[in-house]
Amino acid sequence: MHPLRPELVAVPGTRHAPTPVPGTVRDRFPALADPGVVYLDSAATTQKPDTVIAAVTGYLSEHTANAGRGSYGWSTTLAARIAAIRTRAAGFLGARHPDEIVFTGGATAALGAIAHSWGLAVLDDGDEILYNPADHAANVLPWLHLRDTLARFGRRIVLRPYGSTRTGEADVDDILAQVGPRTRLITTSHLHHVYGGLSTLEELRGRIDPAIALCFDCAQSGGHLPVDVTALDADFAVFAGHKMFGAPGTGLLYCRRRVHDRLRPFLPGGHSGVRATEAGLLSTGMPELLEGGTHNIPGILSLAAAFDLLDELDLFAVAAHNRQLTLRLIEGLRTVPGVEFLPGPAHAGCAVGYGIVSLTLDGISAADLGFVLTESGFLVRTGAHCVPGADPAAGSVRVSTHLYNTLDEIDRFVACVAGIAGHGR
Amino acid sequence: MHPLRPELVAVPGTRHAPTPVPGTVRDRFPALADPGVVYLDSAATTQKPDTVIAAVTGYLSEHTANAGRGSYGWSTTLAARIAAIRTRAAGFLGARHPDEIVFTGGATAALGAIAHSWGLAVLDDGDEILYNPADHAANVLPWLHLRDTLARFGRRIVLRPYGSTRTGEADVDDILAQVGPRTRLITTSHLHHVYGGLSTLEELRGRIDPAIALCFDCAQSGGHLPVDVTALDADFAVFAGHKMFGAPGTGLLYCRRRVHDRLRPFLPGGHSGVRATEAGLLSTGMPELLEGGTHNIPGILSLAAAFDLLDELDLFAVAAHNRQLTLRLIEGLRTVPGVEFLPGPAHAGCAVGYGIVSLTLDGISAADLGFVLTESGFLVRTGAHCVPGADPAAGSVRVSTHLYNTLDEIDRFVACVAGIAGHGR
Repeated sequence: MHPLRPELVAVPGTRHAPTPVPGTVRDRFPALADPGVVYLDSAATTQKPDTVIAAVTGYLSEHTANAGRGSYGWSTTLAARIAAIRTRAAGFLGARHPDEIVFTGGATAALGAIAHSWGLAVLDDGDEILYNPADHAANVLPWLHLRDTLARFGRRIVLRPYGSTRTGEADVDDILAQVGPRTRLITTSHLHHVYGGLSTLEELRGRIDPAIALCFDCAQSGGHLPVDVTALDADFAVFAGHKMFGAPGTGLLYCRRRVHDRLRPFLPGGHSGVRATEAGLLSTGMPELLEGGTHNIPGILSLAAAFDLLDELDLFAVAAHNRQLTLRLIEGLRTVPGVEFLPGPAHAGCAVGYGIVSLTLDGISAADLGFVLTESGFLVRTGAHCVPGADPAAGSVRVSTHLYNTLDEIDRFVACVAGIAGHGR
Repeated sequence: MHPLRPELVAVPGTRHAPTPVPGTVRDRFPALADPGVVYLDSAATTQKPDTVIAAVTGYLSEHTANAGRGSYGWSTTLAARIAAIRTRAAGFLGARHPDEIVFTGGATAALGAIAHSWGLAVLDDGDEILYNPADHAANVLPWLHLRDTLARFGRRIVLRPYGSTRTGEADVDDILAQVGPRTRLITTSHLHHVYGGLSTLEELRGRIDPAIALCFDCAQSGGHLPVDVTALDADFAVFAGHKMFGAPGTGLLYCRRRVHDRLRPFLPGGHSGVRATEAGLLSTGMPELLEGGTHNIPGILSLAAAFDLLDELDLFAVAAHNRQLTLRLIEGLRTVPGVEFLPGPAHAGCAVGYGIVSLTLDGISAADLGFVLTESGFLVRTGAHCVPGADPAAGSVRVSTHLYNTLDEIDRFVACVAGIAGHGR
């Protein structure tokens, strides 16, 4: 169990008794204006606040330029703005240095960057990576692909799968049982995208070689709760802009400084941090080593607007709001006959919850349940949720909340599920 | 010389005496409303028309969803729309099949995808790639990086540099002299980003092994002139959305079907075209093999709006407009004492021009010239223009036009350069 422990997930200095998220915040999300729709799929993508939309529209409408290319004001101002947002992102995520923050095309590209730039560079025959096959494809397939790539060149690494607990967290006992002298990386989702369990790996401290790199997929936790990559002891952490109120096509990759000298370039192009020499491409510094070509400028500008909103509301308040919604949801669904919860906070012995709950209903397929819910105006996710190797027929319905959802919406959702359950009997 | 030869660059069936681009089109670009600014840096990024801005804003403001993930209308409608835009892009670029079109994070990522997915998969010890060191970094560094990566695993490929002609095109005589039995790929910019010369490699036909893959960096030609990847006989071609009126963070990668069975996955994640097996990741089909994770949905939607504008104006008309501007620019600058043209159409024996001209002025550094021009309201690019290994001190001023520029702007620009030249004397 990991209730919100400030020393692990908090931005230092944030107060711990936050002002609740005001109900009026919903008015800032124009896509939610339709009262007939209850959006419960924020784990797929969040809705966008007015300020994010304005940041994107503003870039496209005024002084549109490439950044850092021209010597004229439209371009130099943008370059300075992007540098400032990098520093802002470092502070927001608890990174110690702005050069630890890489702008990527998304969380998937960020995880791919780790595999390409770190994995291809450092892994030797017999080295091991521990991963969770129940994690999102973006935190599974890059490692399988890395293994394939290395195998093409006669280098065999071992991927050791570990399991999830009943509460939807990484099973640290399983990890500890599998860690060995050849373990180089342990990767986990920070907040699991289907189970909604939080994994900080804190139980590993002092019990594994500190040289082992830790990688956190924070696609679901970023913007949902305070995330502090330094407190997490992360070497790598990835974030999806579009799941934290920003525009799609933008991701953040945190790379701790201690790994910088092991990294090779990633997708090099214009303004990459590399120098061509007789001996090959040499690094001229991070984070540019892992960046190349034109940034997704409006996407990066949108991140700043997203940070503003989250700072204004306070991430502790956002987390408390999601916890309240999650607990109400679990409590309500417990009363509905036939509801079974997938692993996650519903199975926990204490009151935790991070805005994600997945369930099945006896006697109706997940697809049919999802269809009826959708027809009733509740937008939820149905299926195998991007877990590679999952049985597509199995499936579940995932409900995911965020700061714009209300207790009333949760109550209406529970009533709808109860109605479907009653109808089936 | 390659004046616009329809059989090489034309979309079949497009008429050849187009209606000129109307001057009113400029009103559709809100960022150009300031009459004090003359934007001559479209090769860095193009300005965005109202319809592109509306497409992005519309997505962020209404029915925001992930695509292909949910079973509800907001999501399924988007997935269908993205599929339709893929088909549209195939038609727009002359691809025979929609599965030859991959959505990427940009042109740099697209070239990186070729290096990773094709290069790492097919290249053997001793294989050769022919490239132009004067091309944009995005078409140089991926190949150097690929060579480094293969070398780490004991596989040595050879990169053979070829040169540019005085008119700014790929030197096909040099290419022919260097092609050998181990040549696997010849890569070139279609339209050179500094010289403004067009390279179709048509002279190679029938003179090289047709198994050699041809790769065109169309970042500058896309949206500037009709590009037909099939007529180009391309195996790979890349396009930058933000240089053809779309939003940044979006690129298009054309992969001809004949190479599909050689490709390995690229940055796999959610909804990638792969299946995890004991034998490794197997392809379940293109284009998903090279895609993973959430698309830059607003970026892709913006491409459709960009295609609409270009179809409405007719790419032949856009090309004719840029040619007219380029010829006027060259003609004007010729009269200014001290102006030296970099390689390009200014040195051609016939009237060609594609919207890019680079120059220096005797007695003033490129940086200073750029500064004075910028202060006078002419937004141009100064420096080494992302050519790796170029002497940063050398530099030049690049002028690049597009459909919103006018002859009057060109005349004012020439007058400004003439004033600077006169002042220095």
